[in-house]
Amino acid sequence: MAGVKPLSRAAIIAVGSELLTPSKIDTNSLFITEQLNLLGIDVIAKAVGGDDRVELAHIFRAFLGRADLVVFSGGLGPTEDDVTREVVASVLDRPLAEDERITAQLRARFAARGFPTPMPEINRRQAMVPAGARVIENARGSAPGLWIEHEDCLVLLLPGPPRELRPMLTSLVESGLEDRGPGRSLVRRVVRVVGRIESHVDEALEPLYREWERLPIPVAATILAALGSIELHLSARAATTAAADTVLDAAVAQTVAVLGPEVYSTDGRTMEKVVGDLLVERGLHVGVAESCTGGLIASRLTDVPGSSRYLDLAVVVYANEAKTDLLGVQSDLLREHGAVSEPVARAMAEGIRSRARADVGIGVTGIAGPGGGSPDKPVGTVVIAVAAAGDTHVRTFRFHGERELVKFQASQAALDMVRRVLMKQ
Amino acid sequence: MAGVKPLSRAAIIAVGSELLTPSKIDTNSLFITEQLNLLGIDVIAKAVGGDDRVELAHIFRAFLGRADLVVFSGGLGPTEDDVTREVVASVLDRPLAEDERITAQLRARFAARGFPTPMPEINRRQAMVPAGARVIENARGSAPGLWIEHEDCLVLLLPGPPRELRPMLTSLVESGLEDRGPGRSLVRRVVRVVGRIESHVDEALEPLYREWERLPIPVAATILAALGSIELHLSARAATTAAADTVLDAAVAQTVAVLGPEVYSTDGRTMEKVVGDLLVERGLHVGVAESCTGGLIASRLTDVPGSSRYLDLAVVVYANEAKTDLLGVQSDLLREHGAVSEPVARAMAEGIRSRARADVGIGVTGIAGPGGGSPDKPVGTVVIAVAAAGDTHVRTFRFHGERELVKFQASQAALDMVRRVLMKQ
Repeated sequence: MAGVKPLSRAAIIAVGSELLTPSKIDTNSLFITEQLNLLGIDVIAKAVGGDDRVELAHIFRAFLGRADLVVFSGGLGPTEDDVTREVVASVLDRPLAEDERITAQLRARFAARGFPTPMPEINRRQAMVPAGARVIENARGSAPGLWIEHEDCLVLLLPGPPRELRPMLTSLVESGLEDRGPGRSLVRRVVRVVGRIESHVDEALEPLYREWERLPIPVAATILAALGSIELHLSARAATTAAADTVLDAAVAQTVAVLGPEVYSTDGRTMEKVVGDLLVERGLHVGVAESCTGGLIASRLTDVPGSSRYLDLAVVVYANEAKTDLLGVQSDLLREHGAVSEPVARAMAEGIRSRARADVGIGVTGIAGPGGGSPDKPVGTVVIAVAAAGDTHVRTFRFHGERELVKFQASQAALDMVRRVLMKQ
Repeated sequence: MAGVKPLSRAAIIAVGSELLTPSKIDTNSLFITEQLNLLGIDVIAKAVGGDDRVELAHIFRAFLGRADLVVFSGGLGPTEDDVTREVVASVLDRPLAEDERITAQLRARFAARGFPTPMPEINRRQAMVPAGARVIENARGSAPGLWIEHEDCLVLLLPGPPRELRPMLTSLVESGLEDRGPGRSLVRRVVRVVGRIESHVDEALEPLYREWERLPIPVAATILAALGSIELHLSARAATTAAADTVLDAAVAQTVAVLGPEVYSTDGRTMEKVVGDLLVERGLHVGVAESCTGGLIASRLTDVPGSSRYLDLAVVVYANEAKTDLLGVQSDLLREHGAVSEPVARAMAEGIRSRARADVGIGVTGIAGPGGGSPDKPVGTVVIAVAAAGDTHVRTFRFHGERELVKFQASQAALDMVRRVLMKQ
């Protein structure tokens, strides 16, 4: 393949009418993207087309001019619904002809599976090959893949079932595709930030963006608002993964220097994993007393394998009696300040710390909604306390959104307060 | 809008470079598809474009000629990366101008959230509107939507965050979009089944599938394996929603007759909502004692608004001392049978029922993994007990998959056991 222009811009087309309904989604493109990125090939666009020849041809034509690699997944089955082969042959103006070796293999495969009847003639559709195409064997199913060099573009047809597509693409990467990429690996990092809004993070990082753009190996940055976090996605393309890693390590370090402790993860770890790791490192235990978060903080902490090393006891105390009975929150406090108040959150955190014999206690009380709000304490008001040796931190937050969003944001803020307390221990 | 040609063919474009990486997927299009289908509008194609003006314009142009409705999601944020507004304005050749009312709203919104600094000037990008566009208010975020009539095509720009997109699209359906569909409604129903595997459900329903296909208004059925449930998706297209509803009501009733109490939801309710509704109907309270599920059962129960009416207390007792201290589980039992055993689950359920003064007590103990398994009690072994007046049910399960999957399946089985107990009360 020496002398051939390297592939750098890919488009992915998933085929199947079921992928245009409200309940099915194309996930093959994630695996395909990962494999192509490792070869330094970018994905510039993705599409989903139904089992409709006209529409599929239209999508294919639109991408042919823009991408130098077009990867199809699906639509290679034996039925009338499976139109990918025909559409590709027609758009590229390459006649389809039956490949007798494929037909023989299909018949043999059919016989080997012990079906009592001979192979239905409709299955011969899977043996139709556009002129000039290379046939790719399918170790896991009946539909072979196809590799078509067309002018400056490579077109790949892969089967839809992931258990067939994945090994086929992996073997193609090793036998041919690897040599066709630009030879420059695309490496990605995600920096997760808590407690700031998207535009503030963006403004703070603006000078870095400009610096990164001008590097010999430039770093591209995209900012994303996730629930309870801002995510900064960084990527760099270099001759080797190691070279890309080096510039990304530097970019991540610069980001941390600018944003400070608001960066909680630079290596893909979740907030609950970061907090868990800090607890393990410091040999500390945590106890949780939740009201409005209803067990979500405990559930997130226990999503982490090995969390039994630092979590012994958590309680969900929805009723005031439970707060008094289990945590020793005095009924005076509840009467005087209301259940959603700083004194009550403090008493909950200190109560669970003592009850669980833990080093750190978390107390959360608030109004998740939709009911229960007042002008003074509207829905979304959440008070969080973290009790540690000698000191209890208390903060009042006001979150926006529906019940489940308030719960999640409150759990994130509580875990973040624990993280900050632990960093100082 | 009388006399306007009805919309029948939609294309959906999700915008964001992160959606072209190996780790993020567009799911907004599922909700958009569902809403459009209800109006009788088919989705003919979907695409994902990055934050690249040229490529996004190319995709938009490709779809403009084929679809009479193009729906964008995402790319409406305040930063340089957010290009949807500009691309649409440029392709449709409509100049962008700042809408001062939007800017004023943005500033007010910013001030109301109590940020110490004024709104960054970059946020004014969100107030830019293409000529002739109708501005759609965003009740949940800062980015307004846009409604653009262009020749025979309607173009909608919706914000990317699902919590903003969903209510905006729902309100558009009710105020304008509804009258623009072709008037043959596609209605869908989801029947949720617990405790059976996909192929069993499929086999049991085979005779119904054949009957439904031959109806004057045929009912289409698709079966889907979701986590902890099998979902049967039924759909029918008819001149009116009422006509489609009638055949679907009958099909749902037939399904329930075949599958029996394993059907837990026919109206979109989640398991936790079904259990919550049963508790409210019967005026009962529940208490939860969790070990391996780590608070997930309590968190799911409290995801339902109004759950404080029936949940007073839940505890996560990871440590054996906590089981003894809070629930009165005798240390003899723990020593003799181990923490993951039927006697301990029973004692936990009865202990929390008594401690929380509840009518129903749930006790769950098991091995979520990846560590902690043994040949006798491998990872995924979970014992669940439900204690009610006069009787305690105990069952041992063996779930497959990773830690979070085991936790979810265990929580689902526990809630289902409560559901079955409550149905008999």
